[in-house]
Amino acid sequence: MKIAVDAMGGDHAPKEIILGTNQALAEIQDLEVLIFGDENKIAPHIIPNSRVKVIHTEEVILGTDEPVRAVRRKKSASMVMMAQAVADGEADACVSAGNTGALMAAGLFIVGRIDGIQRPALAPTLPTVDGKGFVMLDLGANVDAKAEHLLQYAMMGSIYAEKVRGMARPRVGLLNIGTEEKKGNDLTKEAFQLLSRQKDIHFVGNVESRDLLNGAADVVVTDGFTGNMVLKAIEGTALSVFSMLKSALTSSLKAKIGAGLLKSELYQLKDKMDYTEYGGAGLFGLKAPVVKAHGSSNANAFYNALKQAYTMAEANVPLKIAEAANAMSSPISEEE
Amino acid sequence: MKIAVDAMGGDHAPKEIILGTNQALAEIQDLEVLIFGDENKIAPHIIPNSRVKVIHTEEVILGTDEPVRAVRRKKSASMVMMAQAVADGEADACVSAGNTGALMAAGLFIVGRIDGIQRPALAPTLPTVDGKGFVMLDLGANVDAKAEHLLQYAMMGSIYAEKVRGMARPRVGLLNIGTEEKKGNDLTKEAFQLLSRQKDIHFVGNVESRDLLNGAADVVVTDGFTGNMVLKAIEGTALSVFSMLKSALTSSLKAKIGAGLLKSELYQLKDKMDYTEYGGAGLFGLKAPVVKAHGSSNANAFYNALKQAYTMAEANVPLKIAEAANAMSSPISEEE
Repeated sequence: MKIAVDAMGGDHAPKEIILGTNQALAEIQDLEVLIFGDENKIAPHIIPNSRVKVIHTEEVILGTDEPVRAVRRKKSASMVMMAQAVADGEADACVSAGNTGALMAAGLFIVGRIDGIQRPALAPTLPTVDGKGFVMLDLGANVDAKAEHLLQYAMMGSIYAEKVRGMARPRVGLLNIGTEEKKGNDLTKEAFQLLSRQKDIHFVGNVESRDLLNGAADVVVTDGFTGNMVLKAIEGTALSVFSMLKSALTSSLKAKIGAGLLKSELYQLKDKMDYTEYGGAGLFGLKAPVVKAHGSSNANAFYNALKQAYTMAEANVPLKIAEAANAMSSPISEEE
Repeated sequence: MKIAVDAMGGDHAPKEIILGTNQALAEIQDLEVLIFGDENKIAPHIIPNSRVKVIHTEEVILGTDEPVRAVRRKKSASMVMMAQAVADGEADACVSAGNTGALMAAGLFIVGRIDGIQRPALAPTLPTVDGKGFVMLDLGANVDAKAEHLLQYAMMGSIYAEKVRGMARPRVGLLNIGTEEKKGNDLTKEAFQLLSRQKDIHFVGNVESRDLLNGAADVVVTDGFTGNMVLKAIEGTALSVFSMLKSALTSSLKAKIGAGLLKSELYQLKDKMDYTEYGGAGLFGLKAPVVKAHGSSNANAFYNALKQAYTMAEANVPLKIAEAANAMSSPISEEE
């Protein structure tokens, strides 16, 4: 399996990207990697290996670049060349910790959409209190979604949860403002009906955002606008609570002693909320696996994202999605 | 100032409702209260006072009742009679910890909407790390909102923040998936333009859900669907983190000793996140203040909600909103 890596994306590129890649190469015996990036900056960190090749690039897509324009104009940027390698069949999947919007554009315009999939979706795996985690999509690839898009997200998320996360019959929930069938806005009410009728999906009904971390479902579908909002609300709240906790723990000598006794427990708690352990966010619905590693990825987070891309390619998730899209009757078009 | 109270709503009704009412009567000298509920259940808790009167009711709207139907059919329920007292001019405002949907229906159908306000909005005040808090609306009164509704929410939230929370020139933010002007879905893009053009509102641009608890704005406007999702995501995440923290703190003898030393700091932290301190959720846009106290209200939470209704009535917030709605040119109708 050959994975293309963008060495220049993310806050700690290229060092942590390369360290994570070294780790993946050491652990996965049939993994080959094509690294796109600045050779001079990569060289100090890379462990030479016959299964890795560096392709020198000078152009870089910045976090501040306008995504679509950057992908169209910076043809020799590490991210664009990485996606091109996948499109050309030189790699089976790709991973970048760079500009999310640009990676979505590169995925859509260069790697390409699977026939029959109307909108690709950005799908991270988020932590739950019990450590199992859940896949949530879409988290922002498509802000004005339709009900049939949500139905396809449910199908893609189910395939991912089953083939990559090893879950039998993953429970699919529709993110909504109440658990009752009639709750919600026009979009969720329509999506509820579509999901209820689909036999191949184990639909468990509406789930509320307050129950996500308690593992209300294995796959949670929502439109990209709401998903992005909820993801950031979860992140922001967890960060705020931890930062308040940190101030509280250092507010007096007595508190500091107490905190000292709790050190390992508090680190474990923080690890539980660390969703980079689950890999990056997959871009589902493209012809090959494209994985977005977190922008602040350290070596371990990037390693997890790379391993995820490898597993998706190995399980041939895009092919499974294409087959399901083909088999899936579209209840919308039947009715209209 | 006369406030009508629904004694039968909420998880700890009527006891905690009455205890909170006693407290308000003791502290606010010109407060008069009309309590609607079961006399026999109220009597053991109430402190006799010439400024309080109990109106006996037997019917109750349950948390599981379908809101609109319940309000229409249960004419002699405590909540409905409470709202009727406001409509009849017997009370200046009302407070209930009961069924949120039913209270919104009672507010809309019985108390009535202010002329010129298109949609009432549910507006709680949420905590921030610095303790100042912010008003967020709409949190679910109206799930399929239009841009002009968001503009009116901004106006109503600003008036509330200024008149009731005592903030000069409150900063209004539009909840969105990015801070840049062009981010968002059709609704937020259009709302951004409307808000930018409105001189009476101190619009500070888009705010992201991850920055809410850090005090990104004093008033945050969003559609009821997104607002409800984000509120519940914040609540759920805070609860999950606290519950994981609790398990961590009791996981070993050493941890328990550490936790003992941190007791007061941990309680302070929990208090910081307790938004019942800021009162209940106001239903803005109605002819008189209608306040929803949290369903799990204890005496203190209900006291805060009652005080909030009193302050809203004293500051004559509905009149201020009516004047602003009148003065506000509607950019939408000018253009179309």
